[in-house]
Amino acid sequence: EKVAAMLAKKKLVEGDAAVKPGKFVLKCPKGTRDYGPTAMAIREQVIEIMTDTFKRHGAETIETPVFELRDVLLGKYGEEGGKLVYDLQDQGGELLSMRYDLTVPFARYLAMNKVATMKRYHIARVYRRDQPVMTRGRYREFYQCDFDIAGKYDSMIPEAECLKIMDEVLSALKLGQYVIKLNHRLMLEGMFAVIGANDSQFKSVCASVDKLDKEPWDKVEEELVKERGLTPNAAARLGTFVCFKALHPDLDNGAILDQMMQIPELAANAKFKQGVEEIKLLLTYCAAFGVSSAVEVNPSLARGLDYYTGSIYEAVIPDGLAGVKDEEVGVPVGVGSVAGGGRYDGLVGMFSPKASVPCCGVSFGIERLFALIEAKNASEQQRTTSTQVLVASAQKNLLADRMRLVSQLWSWGVKAEIVYKENPKMLNQLQYAEERAIPFVLIIGEQELKDGVVKLRNTKSRVETNVKLEDLQTSLAQMIATSN
Amino acid sequence: EKVAAMLAKKKLVEGDAAVKPGKFVLKCPKGTRDYGPTAMAIREQVIEIMTDTFKRHGAETIETPVFELRDVLLGKYGEEGGKLVYDLQDQGGELLSMRYDLTVPFARYLAMNKVATMKRYHIARVYRRDQPVMTRGRYREFYQCDFDIAGKYDSMIPEAECLKIMDEVLSALKLGQYVIKLNHRLMLEGMFAVIGANDSQFKSVCASVDKLDKEPWDKVEEELVKERGLTPNAAARLGTFVCFKALHPDLDNGAILDQMMQIPELAANAKFKQGVEEIKLLLTYCAAFGVSSAVEVNPSLARGLDYYTGSIYEAVIPDGLAGVKDEEVGVPVGVGSVAGGGRYDGLVGMFSPKASVPCCGVSFGIERLFALIEAKNASEQQRTTSTQVLVASAQKNLLADRMRLVSQLWSWGVKAEIVYKENPKMLNQLQYAEERAIPFVLIIGEQELKDGVVKLRNTKSRVETNVKLEDLQTSLAQMIATSN
Repeated sequence: EKVAAMLAKKKLVEGDAAVKPGKFVLKCPKGTRDYGPTAMAIREQVIEIMTDTFKRHGAETIETPVFELRDVLLGKYGEEGGKLVYDLQDQGGELLSMRYDLTVPFARYLAMNKVATMKRYHIARVYRRDQPVMTRGRYREFYQCDFDIAGKYDSMIPEAECLKIMDEVLSALKLGQYVIKLNHRLMLEGMFAVIGANDSQFKSVCASVDKLDKEPWDKVEEELVKERGLTPNAAARLGTFVCFKALHPDLDNGAILDQMMQIPELAANAKFKQGVEEIKLLLTYCAAFGVSSAVEVNPSLARGLDYYTGSIYEAVIPDGLAGVKDEEVGVPVGVGSVAGGGRYDGLVGMFSPKASVPCCGVSFGIERLFALIEAKNASEQQRTTSTQVLVASAQKNLLADRMRLVSQLWSWGVKAEIVYKENPKMLNQLQYAEERAIPFVLIIGEQELKDGVVKLRNTKSRVETNVKLEDLQTSLAQMIATSN
Repeated sequence: EKVAAMLAKKKLVEGDAAVKPGKFVLKCPKGTRDYGPTAMAIREQVIEIMTDTFKRHGAETIETPVFELRDVLLGKYGEEGGKLVYDLQDQGGELLSMRYDLTVPFARYLAMNKVATMKRYHIARVYRRDQPVMTRGRYREFYQCDFDIAGKYDSMIPEAECLKIMDEVLSALKLGQYVIKLNHRLMLEGMFAVIGANDSQFKSVCASVDKLDKEPWDKVEEELVKERGLTPNAAARLGTFVCFKALHPDLDNGAILDQMMQIPELAANAKFKQGVEEIKLLLTYCAAFGVSSAVEVNPSLARGLDYYTGSIYEAVIPDGLAGVKDEEVGVPVGVGSVAGGGRYDGLVGMFSPKASVPCCGVSFGIERLFALIEAKNASEQQRTTSTQVLVASAQKNLLADRMRLVSQLWSWGVKAEIVYKENPKMLNQLQYAEERAIPFVLIIGEQELKDGVVKLRNTKSRVETNVKLEDLQTSLAQMIATSN
C-alpha cells in the first residue's frame, strides 16, 4: 500500500498519466514538467519582482536561440558538465546542442556582436541531461534568471550593484532571513599557495571545500587527503583558513579580513592581499548602496564553476524551509542556496581572443524560489486568472445582451467573462464566479434592461445592489479599486 | 560592390560575425537569430498587448517542455510537416523531438491531465527544420502566440470570442486596416462533394485553393486539373463557388451565404447547409460582441492544416506593408496573414480516444507582427531601458554619495543608474544620459550636499533647477509623471 502511494506520488510529480496499453505512454520527457496555470501564476509573480528590479537598475534584456552550434558549448563546462549537454540529431547541416546555461550564450553574443559594454538580464530555460530528482526540484529543463554587467569599469562598482540587486530581490520576495556569502578567488588561490597545494589541484580542492555548507570539516578534510592528494598537514592548515568564519563566528566582515591578514604567510601572498583589498573596497560600496547586513565574508565559499576570476558570492536562506517537510513540497531541505555569481573576466575572450570584455553577474535559482513561494502560499487559494467581473443573466434568451455588456466592459479595460452557454442556469454562473474567485457578478434581466439598470453582486459578501447603466463604468472602477 | 553590400546585409540579418580562420565560425545556428535589446523592447510591447487582451478575457497560461516524446508529435503534422521536426540525438533513454507548434502540446496537456475545459494562452518558441528565408522573416526558431478555448460549449460562442480577441489585438496594434476572413470546413466539404471530388482529394485540393490569396484563379485551376486530378468541368464549377466573394465583391456577409444557398446542389448538401447555419450564428454573435466590420465571409479560405473540423478564420493586413520595401525590413510583402485559427474537435482524442474535448483557437503570427512594428517604428529612437534618472557628480570623490543617492531613488521605485567610474567626467555622464534618452540627471556636488540640495537637469531641454533633498521624492514623481 505504501509502495502504491509512493508510485502514485511519483506519477503526480513526474506528470505521468493515462498509460494506454498497446500505445505510447502519455507523459512529459524525463526530467521535464508542464507548468499548469497555478505554477504559472506563481512564476509570473516571481519573474515580475525580478524584472522590475533589473529594470529599476537600467538593465536591458536579450534572447538567444535555445540551441547553439555544438562548438560554442564545447569545453566550456568541464568534463562533467560536458557529459550533460543535450545534443540534437545530425539531420544534415550544423551540429547543434541545447544551451546548458545562459552565461556562455551571453559571452557568445558579446563576442559575435563586438559589444564592449552591456547590463543585461535574461530569464529563460536551460537543459542538462542530469539524473533528475524531481521530488527535490532537480529538473532537466529549468529556468535560469541571470543579470550580468559586461564592460571595463572601475574596480568593484559593478559587483556592488550585483549584490544590491540580490539584496533587493530577496527582500522583495519576503522569504525570511537570508545571508549573502562573499569570497574572492584570489584569496582562495592565496590560501592554497600557502599550504603548498599546486595549481593542478585547485579545481578539485575547491570542489571539496565547496561542500562545507552541507558537510562538517572532518569529512571534507578526509576527502582532501584521501581523494585530492593533500598532505594531512596541508589539509589541516587549509581548515584553519577556510573555516575562519566558522571558528570566529562573532567577528564582523572587516575583522575577519584583518585577522586573516595577521597570519604572516597569507599577508605575504600577493594574490591573497589583492583579494582582501578588493573585498574591502566592495564592502565600502555595499555600505554606500545600503546593502543590508546580510553580506557575510566567508573564506569557505568556493563556487563550483571554474570560470570565476575575482569576487564570488552566494545567497542562502538557511531557515527558508523551516517547518516545511521535503515530502510535502518537493524542494531540497537545508540546501538554501538561491542565488550566486561572481566576476568572470575570461569568458568572452574564449570566443574572441582580442576582445577582452570583463564581466560579473548573478544568477538566481529561480526554480527553487518558485518552489519556496509555492510552499509558502500552499494554504492560500492561488487565482490563475485576474477576471474581475462575470456577466450573468437569470433568464433565457439574453445571450446577445450578455455579449453586448461584456464587450462594453472589455472596451473599458475591465477583465470580464461570460459562460459559453446560450441559457445558463443562474446557480451555475454564480458557482463559476465563486470557484474562480471572480469578485463581482453583473446580473442582467429583461426588466432590468428595460429600466436601464443591472444588478451588481459581490461574490464574497453576496450583497447585491442595482446600478444604473450610465453609472456602471464609474461604479465598477470604484468597486474594483476597493476590492484590490 | 553591390555583391559586397548584399553580403554585408546577409551577414547582418543572419547574425554571422567574426569568422575566425582555423577556428569555428562565431554565429547562431542556421535559421535562428539573437534578439538584441531593441528587438526585445518591441517584442515586449507586442506581447504585452496580447497578454493584456487574453487576461481581459479571463484566460490562464501554461508552459510545456520545449521538446516532447517523439511519439507525441509523430503523425500530427502530415507528411511534409513531419520531415521538418527537429529530433534530439539518442543519448540513451527516451527519443525526443522539439515542439513544432503549441497546439499539439496543448492537446497532449489536456489529455494527460484529463482537463475538460480550459481557456489558455501560450506564447513561446517552436522549431521547424525548414529552409530559412530570414530576409523574408522565415526562421527555424520562432515565436507563436496561441489562444485556445477547450470544452463542450454551446455552438459558436467560443469562436465568437476568438474573433473578438483577434479584432481587439489587431486594433490595439494600430497596424492599419485588416480583414478577418471566415469560412467553414463543412462548406468546403459540401462544395467538393457537389463538384464530384472524392474525399481523398480534399486535402490536396484545399492546399491549392488556399493559394488564392496569392495567385489568380486561372493558375489555381490549372493546378487543380493537372496536379490534383480534378476534371476541367469540376475545377471550373469549384471556381464559381470558392471565388464567390471575389465575383460578387459588393455582397455583404449574409448575402453571400444566402445567394450560395440559392444554388440548388449546395442547398441540398447537408454539410454545406450546416456550415452556413453555423457561420450565420457566428455572425450574429460577432455583431453582439461588436466585432468590427472587418469580418468577411470568404469561401476561398482553406487553411493548410487538416485538423480543423468547423469554422476557420484568418486575419490579413492587405496594406500593412504599403510603402515598405521588402529589402528594407526583411518581412514578406503582400502576404499579409497575421493570425488564423479555427475549430479542431478531434485533436485531443488522438491522445486519449475516450476524452472528447472540442477546441477552437487562434494563433497570432507574432514574428510577422514584430517585423511590422519594427518597420513602423524604424524612424523613431527605440529605448531599450526605462531608466528615468542618472545620478551624476561634477567633482571627484563623490562615488559613495552617488551610491547613497541612487539607492534612495531605487527605494522609492525610481528607475535610476550611476556610471561605474570612481571619478567620471561630467561630460561623459551627460552624454550617457543623452545616448540612452534618460530624461533626467540628478547632479550632486560638495557644496550642494552641504546645502542639502541637488541639481535636477532635464536632458532634453537642458534646463537645470535646484531641488531640496527633502522635496526630492515629490519633485521627481511629478517630473517623471509629466515627462511620460
